[in-house]
Amino acid sequence: MGKIYEYNVLRVDLTNEEIKREKIAGEKVKNFLGGRGLGSKILYDEIDPTIDAFSPENKLIYAAGLLTGTAASTGGRYMVITKGPLTGTIASSNSGGFFGAELRFSGNDIIIFEGKAEKPVYLSLKGDKAELKDASHLWGKGVYETTDVLIEEFGDEKARVSCIGPAGENLVKFASIMNEKDRAAGRTGVGAVMGSKNLKAVVVKAEEKQVEYFKDEMMKVVRKQTKTLKEHGVTGEGLPALGTKVLDNIINSHGAYPRNNFQYATFDKVDEVSGEALVEKGYLQGNKGCYGCPIRCGRDTKLPNGQQGEGPEYETGWAFGAQCGVSDLNAIVQANFLCNDLGMDTISAGVTIGCAMELYEKGYVDKEEFENGPELTFGSSESVTYYTRQMALREGFGDQMAEGSYRLAEAKGNAELSMSVKKQELPAYDPRGVQGHGLNYVTSNRGGCHVRGYMISPEVLGVPEKLDPQELKGKPEWVKLYQDLTAVIDSIGMCLFTSFALGLEDYAEIVNAGTEFDFTPEEILENGERIYNLERQFNLEAGITPAEDRLPDRFDDPLPDGTFRGISTKYREILPEYYELRGWQEDGYISDQKLSEMGLK
Amino acid sequence: MGKIYEYNVLRVDLTNEEIKREKIAGEKVKNFLGGRGLGSKILYDEIDPTIDAFSPENKLIYAAGLLTGTAASTGGRYMVITKGPLTGTIASSNSGGFFGAELRFSGNDIIIFEGKAEKPVYLSLKGDKAELKDASHLWGKGVYETTDVLIEEFGDEKARVSCIGPAGENLVKFASIMNEKDRAAGRTGVGAVMGSKNLKAVVVKAEEKQVEYFKDEMMKVVRKQTKTLKEHGVTGEGLPALGTKVLDNIINSHGAYPRNNFQYATFDKVDEVSGEALVEKGYLQGNKGCYGCPIRCGRDTKLPNGQQGEGPEYETGWAFGAQCGVSDLNAIVQANFLCNDLGMDTISAGVTIGCAMELYEKGYVDKEEFENGPELTFGSSESVTYYTRQMALREGFGDQMAEGSYRLAEAKGNAELSMSVKKQELPAYDPRGVQGHGLNYVTSNRGGCHVRGYMISPEVLGVPEKLDPQELKGKPEWVKLYQDLTAVIDSIGMCLFTSFALGLEDYAEIVNAGTEFDFTPEEILENGERIYNLERQFNLEAGITPAEDRLPDRFDDPLPDGTFRGISTKYREILPEYYELRGWQEDGYISDQKLSEMGLK
Repeated sequence: MGKIYEYNVLRVDLTNEEIKREKIAGEKVKNFLGGRGLGSKILYDEIDPTIDAFSPENKLIYAAGLLTGTAASTGGRYMVITKGPLTGTIASSNSGGFFGAELRFSGNDIIIFEGKAEKPVYLSLKGDKAELKDASHLWGKGVYETTDVLIEEFGDEKARVSCIGPAGENLVKFASIMNEKDRAAGRTGVGAVMGSKNLKAVVVKAEEKQVEYFKDEMMKVVRKQTKTLKEHGVTGEGLPALGTKVLDNIINSHGAYPRNNFQYATFDKVDEVSGEALVEKGYLQGNKGCYGCPIRCGRDTKLPNGQQGEGPEYETGWAFGAQCGVSDLNAIVQANFLCNDLGMDTISAGVTIGCAMELYEKGYVDKEEFENGPELTFGSSESVTYYTRQMALREGFGDQMAEGSYRLAEAKGNAELSMSVKKQELPAYDPRGVQGHGLNYVTSNRGGCHVRGYMISPEVLGVPEKLDPQELKGKPEWVKLYQDLTAVIDSIGMCLFTSFALGLEDYAEIVNAGTEFDFTPEEILENGERIYNLERQFNLEAGITPAEDRLPDRFDDPLPDGTFRGISTKYREILPEYYELRGWQEDGYISDQKLSEMGLK
Repeated sequence: MGKIYEYNVLRVDLTNEEIKREKIAGEKVKNFLGGRGLGSKILYDEIDPTIDAFSPENKLIYAAGLLTGTAASTGGRYMVITKGPLTGTIASSNSGGFFGAELRFSGNDIIIFEGKAEKPVYLSLKGDKAELKDASHLWGKGVYETTDVLIEEFGDEKARVSCIGPAGENLVKFASIMNEKDRAAGRTGVGAVMGSKNLKAVVVKAEEKQVEYFKDEMMKVVRKQTKTLKEHGVTGEGLPALGTKVLDNIINSHGAYPRNNFQYATFDKVDEVSGEALVEKGYLQGNKGCYGCPIRCGRDTKLPNGQQGEGPEYETGWAFGAQCGVSDLNAIVQANFLCNDLGMDTISAGVTIGCAMELYEKGYVDKEEFENGPELTFGSSESVTYYTRQMALREGFGDQMAEGSYRLAEAKGNAELSMSVKKQELPAYDPRGVQGHGLNYVTSNRGGCHVRGYMISPEVLGVPEKLDPQELKGKPEWVKLYQDLTAVIDSIGMCLFTSFALGLEDYAEIVNAGTEFDFTPEEILENGERIYNLERQFNLEAGITPAEDRLPDRFDDPLPDGTFRGISTKYREILPEYYELRGWQEDGYISDQKLSEMGLK
């Protein structure tokens, strides 16, 4: 009998060094599933959304998904949920690897960190034992070293470590939490909240697998879904061969590959930095897969100096590449490894560098501010590694950049040069070339983001069907569907990439096979909608008004190059329809009635 | 009537801010010619060789060559002579560009800087006027900006600037003096002595050309020599097409291209960093020539970020490339530009980085010493730019590296890992692959150096004739000849590269045509020998004993790879014969009798 709908919660009071065990079951699990959904529900119920993200009143929630640690294909993901320091919205960030599954195995499905430790600590989960231990000797150390030292101290080389680096300790607004060294809960600055709590790491090793589920009943479905994943062009061929960097050439020829802080949408040097180049130039050593994953899109990469790590992902390669006008693959991979070791989101880091370059080139930043660092000019590969480090360490000009592109640009008197939504940096797709994706950007509950409604799939890749990227009709429905579906996937603990090949029915089927639930596809999607509304409501209560459902002014200017030359963003034309579809008020707020319907009030 | 044998000297007392004009003529000029020779004679006569290089008692001498500023092909060179902080020997460093000719035009053939200014100053030479001016506003600024600001202040865009960057100010032991931004009096740390005197720059613009010489009589010889230079394979084809970087492939296939701090002698990635790659990858914008030069070997280079400069030369590309195991051309060019702007010798900088990499990889340097900088591992292109900057600014671990590889390695308990002679870093040729060149290394009067007796020419390039690089017989004669001939070329103000095509007779002919002198080839070569002996005597009196005529232990080990696998250095077998040929004592000291013969006592 599966007990998967009953969650074991570890409540860790860092201020008083008290650890309690609780359970969550019933409606909450049925309505919010796990991972992103359940974690958000806990956060919404337990904190005041108006508090400062770095105050001890904020909570940091690690949450395994409903199927995390089961036999489900790609079922190894966990989520970190908190109030975010970069956006002021609810923040949640998802990571793969093996840590999430191990957490589940250990019988700790959810961890709620509260308060603030007096001095650096880490949480050790060894079999049944949960202990806070001194981490003073690890403070200041990078992710790679911290991971090695903790595994050594733990005394079991199979232990899994999730930790922050110097960026998190230094409250860099977009610091990440890293596990297995190179896997990141990358976005929204969850690592900075962890740093603000003086919490360096969580180390876990189960003694016996404490996750119970209907394994035999699942296996038939898992085999079918694995076969589907293996046979699909994207999950069976493109991603295994080139990783997410299969996209460089695709998005560039589509005409939505931002260059020089989104001033252009094509990059003539894409061949020097593409996924293909990563192979041809000898950086790629092989593929890496996460727990239970048949896709294995991870890149095992090696620099000429022998340094090894994972990446770069498409977004990372672009952020340190075209976004900064840089075509030096070596520098890009180095910046990627630096972010992993220092614990920092690659997208926000790269976009902030590109923003600083435009600010400097336009005269908003004085050369003196660089002190003795290199000039931030587009194309300067040296700047990319140099300021990545400076940001994480908050040294020199990096201290200003560590606040993110919005606060940096605002301080320099030109906030509109920050390519962000709700102060979080945009990823690697110009919204003028993918109009539905633009609507997704402005309505994402965690600010500028591509993985909360990946409209690139239908608008560019033609999966599950090809949509005209400039057509507006029907886009609000698609965006809503993708957003709600993604909320489901993030909550059941599977990887978003499965959605290239699997559909809503598949997710309902695998959940039903492994648990006692018996969702229709519509019911499980309604859970997604509920989660989406909960997040939105958190943000509204936090003071993030619907006026922030907007793109920077730049996108109202026509694109100067590429396929969509002369075209501007059109999200405003479909935003009212989107609100309506969502059942929200015309002003973008959610009525009490809608909240009641969703069971949120 | 030419008056070129009469030198106008400007004596600048920095301590008391007094400037005097003097003349040098007669035997001194006849015996020491100008440039390196005459400057060394002045230094030897005026300072105690045992003083500290940074004491105010040291002098810094700018000296134009005998033919500098005349019609002689490549006749635009000047020399800076001082006691060197890196080696403790007499130090002198040669630079091209246009500054030297302008200095001569202005009627200031030699400048002797004495003492130490109370606060930063620069010397302004405008027509007849010589003034010391406040340079406080320039202190801390890079070479590029300093040059621009001074030209602006001077009020004549044709003014020429020779200055130091932050490296010189920070007394980096291998700081350079730069003119026209990218031309360097690079080696031996002359820039640090300039910094120790609080002297930031010399700016010069002549009102009318004050150099008098037999121009009409010279022109016939100049035309002949220019034709010879243009028709020669090296000076007419190789150097114009690829610059000195024509050598990467040649020296690598010869098996003397040092990699990873001279642990190996071949580099499998040479194609990624060669002169050919510089062209193919689009860095090269065109050629640049110095004053009066028909060769034009300078590389006008542009980075993808639009930054423009000169270089890299062969030695520079190698020092930041193969010496550090780095194959990233972008990083190499950036490190080159950094050295130009910060005012630092590229060879010593790169070799010191490579040395630090070996020290770290072998466990002599603790990771903690890098503070938050990248790990110094072979192949780390990030380290190359990062620590180049840190050295110049003496920040973090760069502060230790700024002392040069010898003092760094010695402080870490393993001085033998410094690839240097007399504490100056070796250039890009493994002496085990060119035995005569090894003898030249150990007997160079300014420590590890290739341009004081470039045996690569006969031993590898076959110019003027091909010598077996492993043959020892006859090599002492060749080394002596090249050393004495080079002393002549450096003293008459022509470029060493002319010696690929021109011979001793040509140099005598052009000197005789332009001046009142009437040297036989033998007589002018005897001047070279005199200069060489003077330098040696300075060093002996400074306490640099003949025991320092040696290579690091590494070269007694057999080469592990390439054509000369299994072969060690053999300089010891021919050093006694070299001493004997020089007329020196068996112990390497110079007898009083020899000094008398040379007119040095």
